[in-house]
Amino acid sequence: MDIDTIAAVATPPGEGGIGIIRLSGKKSLEIADAIFKGASEKPLSGLEERRLNYGHIVNPKDRRAVDEVMAVYMKEPKTYTKEDVVEIHCHGGAISVRRILELVLLEGARLAEKGEFTKRAFLNGRIDLSQAEAVIDLIKAKTDANFDMSLNQLEGSMTLKVRELQNELLSMLAHIEASIDFPDQDVEEITSEELKKTAKHVYEEIDKLIATSNTGRIIKEGVKTVILGKPNVGKSSLMNALLRENRAIVTDIPGTTRDIIEEYVNINGIPLRIVDTAGIRETDDLVEKIGVERAKEMLRDADLAIVVFDCSKELEQEDIEIISLVKDKPAIVLFNKTDLDSKLREEDVSNMLKDKYIITTSMLEGKGIDKLEEKLKEMFLSSEVEIGEDPIVTNTRQRDLLIKAKENVQDALDALNMEMPVDCIEVDIKGCWENLGFITGDSIGEDIIDKIFKNFCIGK
Amino acid sequence: MDIDTIAAVATPPGEGGIGIIRLSGKKSLEIADAIFKGASEKPLSGLEERRLNYGHIVNPKDRRAVDEVMAVYMKEPKTYTKEDVVEIHCHGGAISVRRILELVLLEGARLAEKGEFTKRAFLNGRIDLSQAEAVIDLIKAKTDANFDMSLNQLEGSMTLKVRELQNELLSMLAHIEASIDFPDQDVEEITSEELKKTAKHVYEEIDKLIATSNTGRIIKEGVKTVILGKPNVGKSSLMNALLRENRAIVTDIPGTTRDIIEEYVNINGIPLRIVDTAGIRETDDLVEKIGVERAKEMLRDADLAIVVFDCSKELEQEDIEIISLVKDKPAIVLFNKTDLDSKLREEDVSNMLKDKYIITTSMLEGKGIDKLEEKLKEMFLSSEVEIGEDPIVTNTRQRDLLIKAKENVQDALDALNMEMPVDCIEVDIKGCWENLGFITGDSIGEDIIDKIFKNFCIGK
Repeated sequence: MDIDTIAAVATPPGEGGIGIIRLSGKKSLEIADAIFKGASEKPLSGLEERRLNYGHIVNPKDRRAVDEVMAVYMKEPKTYTKEDVVEIHCHGGAISVRRILELVLLEGARLAEKGEFTKRAFLNGRIDLSQAEAVIDLIKAKTDANFDMSLNQLEGSMTLKVRELQNELLSMLAHIEASIDFPDQDVEEITSEELKKTAKHVYEEIDKLIATSNTGRIIKEGVKTVILGKPNVGKSSLMNALLRENRAIVTDIPGTTRDIIEEYVNINGIPLRIVDTAGIRETDDLVEKIGVERAKEMLRDADLAIVVFDCSKELEQEDIEIISLVKDKPAIVLFNKTDLDSKLREEDVSNMLKDKYIITTSMLEGKGIDKLEEKLKEMFLSSEVEIGEDPIVTNTRQRDLLIKAKENVQDALDALNMEMPVDCIEVDIKGCWENLGFITGDSIGEDIIDKIFKNFCIGK
Repeated sequence: MDIDTIAAVATPPGEGGIGIIRLSGKKSLEIADAIFKGASEKPLSGLEERRLNYGHIVNPKDRRAVDEVMAVYMKEPKTYTKEDVVEIHCHGGAISVRRILELVLLEGARLAEKGEFTKRAFLNGRIDLSQAEAVIDLIKAKTDANFDMSLNQLEGSMTLKVRELQNELLSMLAHIEASIDFPDQDVEEITSEELKKTAKHVYEEIDKLIATSNTGRIIKEGVKTVILGKPNVGKSSLMNALLRENRAIVTDIPGTTRDIIEEYVNINGIPLRIVDTAGIRETDDLVEKIGVERAKEMLRDADLAIVVFDCSKELEQEDIEIISLVKDKPAIVLFNKTDLDSKLREEDVSNMLKDKYIITTSMLEGKGIDKLEEKLKEMFLSSEVEIGEDPIVTNTRQRDLLIKAKENVQDALDALNMEMPVDCIEVDIKGCWENLGFITGDSIGEDIIDKIFKNFCIGK
């Protein structure tokens, strides 16, 4: 385990009233003492623990003031990382946080890796792995539902469920041990029935959890949506109509020099993640701009396509091409511009669009948007999503482990049904127990841990 | 004076480990108590002052947890605003800070205006106006020099200087009163000499301060630089060469939908604010892209133009047009691509560029950049800028007031030289005293105060 002292800026980059530099590790207080001078010249170690103390950060070389700050020392183990933690609250903006961070590093701290504070909280046993994963989900959450789901996970809803199932598995193992120690026919029969019952229950519970993963994914990542249509059919008007009524968050996808811009539109709790709105907004001409190949690629992992037709015009070859692009996808078709004379009727295309849902709209008159929103809700939320206390599977790591655990229980059930000796199923039950344990991070490998935490932001 | 309780997010927007919601005003603690539940169910008012307390923000309607937080109460008057202050430290990211802010507003706080926390610090007498101005400069600082200059101002360097000069003016007023009360010829003569001497000193000191304003402006705002040249002469290579060796900060200018991007390059302590690097970087073709009219407009308030020629080609009509654009501007001309056969020599253009400084460069081979950097230093910093304890005028408001104050002293001196009765100069001295007082915000109008604080960011 790392025992050096780490430091990072804990606040988002940019201009703001307050910036925070956070330290964690044995040398935190010593480092703070070297650079912090409180009112009446006191070092941080001479001041009360957990108290926000006014003072200055000074450069130890020339004793010149670097910034006016508040500093707080939090003694282990009741801290975020279960280690000694110091926070320095300085003026927000680019310069102060950078300079104080530089001083802190000069005094012997190491720049924290992404997620390293939370990793320490996990390694030091304050939280488990599903809770650590929840922390980054909280920070990255784009909607209230996503935030609530992650907060429940942080508060231990998944942990609790996993422990509950693990306890059932342990009781099975105890039964098996008993039947091995007392190899009496009667005991074994009872044991077998008992085991089957418990295994079935565990199986069902895991299955229920797995079933939450689609909701979890949609809440977390949004419904990946591609809007398609010829130029001037009303795609940008559609975007504007959706945005007008709903809070939108625009995100640039890093590394792609702004040529893909996503926008999150929150529709009745469903985050619609609309891809490449830059193309839509700037040129209103996605397919033409990006080409059919790229459109196909974008559609490949889309959850939904919204196809827009201009019903004041007859169907053209390009429209038919677009229809063929989305034929195997969940798609909603909009017949837009009903305010104009209609030359396109549902009957004309219904054979081509047999399984697609058609909505007539007039973006100009604001008609049909409500129907679109209703349909979206119907498609993606089987019932009202009420983020309660129940755990929801929020990432593929958890989901994959649950699938493996389910297979283990299935194997155990198969063995029980074939009336194989109970000790043969011990290995399956143990496997299931272990796979569940990986969710919370019991006995998990260093490499997997690193992989999980590298998705974090710096300073958490 | 406002007496309601204000609230805002104090950390920059975006993803980060920690987000802070700050409250200030009489109801801060009451509002916090309504939504904060500490460990062992204690409200914030039941916990120690100035201590970071772990707990949850709960929605008072359904008592459901909104986020896991740390909360701190700081009792007036020893706070940033001299009012009761509460800070809630929650998970960074978009959702949590927004939701907690919403709860706080529902409980009776008002959303703070830009700079309103600092405005209260000023109105409540904790800092003066020059110090308040320093706060926003600190946050917006792009270079260390800018930050240091602002920190000195925050620590009161300008305040001290202004008070010192005001004291001299007060002593003059005392002399004048004395000579009026005891209208004895001898006293008056002495008084007149004494007054002249002090007035001269004040005049010189104000003049010195005004002289710092150019340095102040360049340190704060950077040297506004426009890079001009035909396509493919090496403008983007120049940008890259400058950026390679120097820390750069990219800023989008808000409201212009990304069509102007500035980059700050820190060259030997001189922040070069290079305008419209988007044009340069994306198309390497600024003049063509933006047109001659726009280039002229950009040049109008530029401090410097860097003109790049490709010396492997003969001069074209476009080059000559560019030369004519910058003829009345401080400009540096680069003869680039010396690695290729040269077809353009300094002699060919020196009559056109008579007062411009010419540097031969090869961006490809990295030659000449050092000379450019030296020249920049020579042009914009007469001597090494060492941000010491002396006050530097950092904005036009301060500068304009100093110019007025200087005029007042000049008038007083003129009156003294014309041997006018000393009581006639009383009004000039008082005017000078008042104009200096406006710098620190003594007896300044509500409208001016509002104008100053509206440049702040939310949450400060």
